[in-house]
Amino acid sequence: MHKVIFDTDPGVDDSMALVFQTRHPEIELIGVTSVFGNATIETTTRNAVYLVERFADPTVVVARGAGKPLRRATPEPIPHIHGHNGLGDIVLPTLADGGRARLDARPAHRFIIDEIRKHPHEINLIAVGPMTNLALALQEDPEIQQLVKQVIIMGGAFGMNGVLGNVSPCAEANISADPEAADQVFAAAWKVTAVGLDVTQKAIMDTAYLDRIRQHGGEVGQFVWDVSRLYEQFHIDSSGVHGIYVHDSSAVAYLVAPELYRIRRGAVRVVVEGLAVGQTIQKPESMGVPAPDWDNSSKQDVCVDVDVDGFLKLYFDTIVGTAA
Amino acid sequence: MHKVIFDTDPGVDDSMALVFQTRHPEIELIGVTSVFGNATIETTTRNAVYLVERFADPTVVVARGAGKPLRRATPEPIPHIHGHNGLGDIVLPTLADGGRARLDARPAHRFIIDEIRKHPHEINLIAVGPMTNLALALQEDPEIQQLVKQVIIMGGAFGMNGVLGNVSPCAEANISADPEAADQVFAAAWKVTAVGLDVTQKAIMDTAYLDRIRQHGGEVGQFVWDVSRLYEQFHIDSSGVHGIYVHDSSAVAYLVAPELYRIRRGAVRVVVEGLAVGQTIQKPESMGVPAPDWDNSSKQDVCVDVDVDGFLKLYFDTIVGTAA
Repeated sequence: MHKVIFDTDPGVDDSMALVFQTRHPEIELIGVTSVFGNATIETTTRNAVYLVERFADPTVVVARGAGKPLRRATPEPIPHIHGHNGLGDIVLPTLADGGRARLDARPAHRFIIDEIRKHPHEINLIAVGPMTNLALALQEDPEIQQLVKQVIIMGGAFGMNGVLGNVSPCAEANISADPEAADQVFAAAWKVTAVGLDVTQKAIMDTAYLDRIRQHGGEVGQFVWDVSRLYEQFHIDSSGVHGIYVHDSSAVAYLVAPELYRIRRGAVRVVVEGLAVGQTIQKPESMGVPAPDWDNSSKQDVCVDVDVDGFLKLYFDTIVGTAA
Repeated sequence: MHKVIFDTDPGVDDSMALVFQTRHPEIELIGVTSVFGNATIETTTRNAVYLVERFADPTVVVARGAGKPLRRATPEPIPHIHGHNGLGDIVLPTLADGGRARLDARPAHRFIIDEIRKHPHEINLIAVGPMTNLALALQEDPEIQQLVKQVIIMGGAFGMNGVLGNVSPCAEANISADPEAADQVFAAAWKVTAVGLDVTQKAIMDTAYLDRIRQHGGEVGQFVWDVSRLYEQFHIDSSGVHGIYVHDSSAVAYLVAPELYRIRRGAVRVVVEGLAVGQTIQKPESMGVPAPDWDNSSKQDVCVDVDVDGFLKLYFDTIVGTAA
């Protein structure tokens, strides 16, 4: 079993990644930590509570995380992508006290530290929002670098398919929202795998696929369909993709089926100022020229290609309940 | 006939691009302008004179250009790539006065301006070194933006194949040598096509191909073989490529056979400071999000794919003399 802490800003594709985890037979979800990003921290935390209460085991903890980046202003809301309520404007029940009653008393980064220490070398930290909680955890307890099993993030773009960003010509949303935090996460001496736009924009779920999920996936399948309606319309309107990019679920897929991904190893730095702010730049291990800004940093893994059919089958089988 | 001014820092692959032009039946080479880059301006100018005297028509003018970037220190020499003499350390004759007797009195950027004005809307400016001469010409006479036919540059990398640079993890050599000049060239209101690493690193000439050029290409073929020996060894040692990247000839190929290339349109900016200095970043025309740093700049063309076999056949047939 893979023990997971899921750091997330739900978020439509975040919610799809969460139900993917709750349905997968080899994932033991320990806790969900919220972060600002696709919506405000109030909204993403409320959504995390809602999703956990509806789909996860009662043992799963929710801890509220950072409401803003380490050093920057909070990014503008994006209701045209994730809806005003962060979940595609599906109807949500009113939670008593906005969900606060269900929350752990600790802030997200403290919960992350405590769980990593409680289960040394066992925790897979999957982070699919801005990297702020992870950076705060690193700052408060650097020893977690040696105690976590691995960190898998959805974020960045590494120039494999002509796309370097989605919120600017060279910045992906999660990294752009807190570039300083992301740079710290990549620089740390833990094992990071980045699942970026290079692979997430290849793994498209089209309308017919989502319809099959709805038909065969029971309540969860219906939820995946409902939550993705506005998100799909955004993709059709903005990019001509008839279907949706499934960013966050790709990070979960990497955990349970790394063989679906091709990896490139090398230090990753994040640009924190100027024209290219928010860009992730890897120095591939194979590159011979000296580059001091990279050469003293930790080598990390970046996903550079994906078996799209394998990914889509894995997600479908997991939701429908026929996964191995 | 395509009238060409070739702005160059010979340079092994520069010299291969020059003989490509002198052999091509549809190219009328007007002049060659030198610039620092693969070697010092003294060396690249001497080499330009040597190459023109040996391979070009007597009418072809040589004009000496910039010896350093607009605002930076001159990059370090790279004798392990282009040799101490800039031409793979082949034996060169001693030129009287270091070749200065053969030179036009005007500096390169003035020669460029004068020729563009003399042949309005007819000059193809092919630039395969640092963009300094072009920037100086733009500064001295902005009207050339409307009077040149087109500008084709070898430079940059646009994230099509996982490679963003060759002198750093995100900077290609020609752009990196003078990023401010390159940013001005892309921003100008003339038609620029960038032939970057995305396509030049696909168009590999392997040892067997170069050997066929030598066997069938007469004196020019022998020269191509001789000049590329050290350069090939560098590629084998540094990148495991058994053959050579043919960067500069790809810019010439784009002029005579644009159908071999797939193009993406959109404003291009160059990073001039920080971690990503020297990086070229295009905002594809299809990208909907606002990006003020790009949205007010000229849209340019970037080569994103190449018909490799078509390119190799074109070069071979041209050198051997069987081109259409």
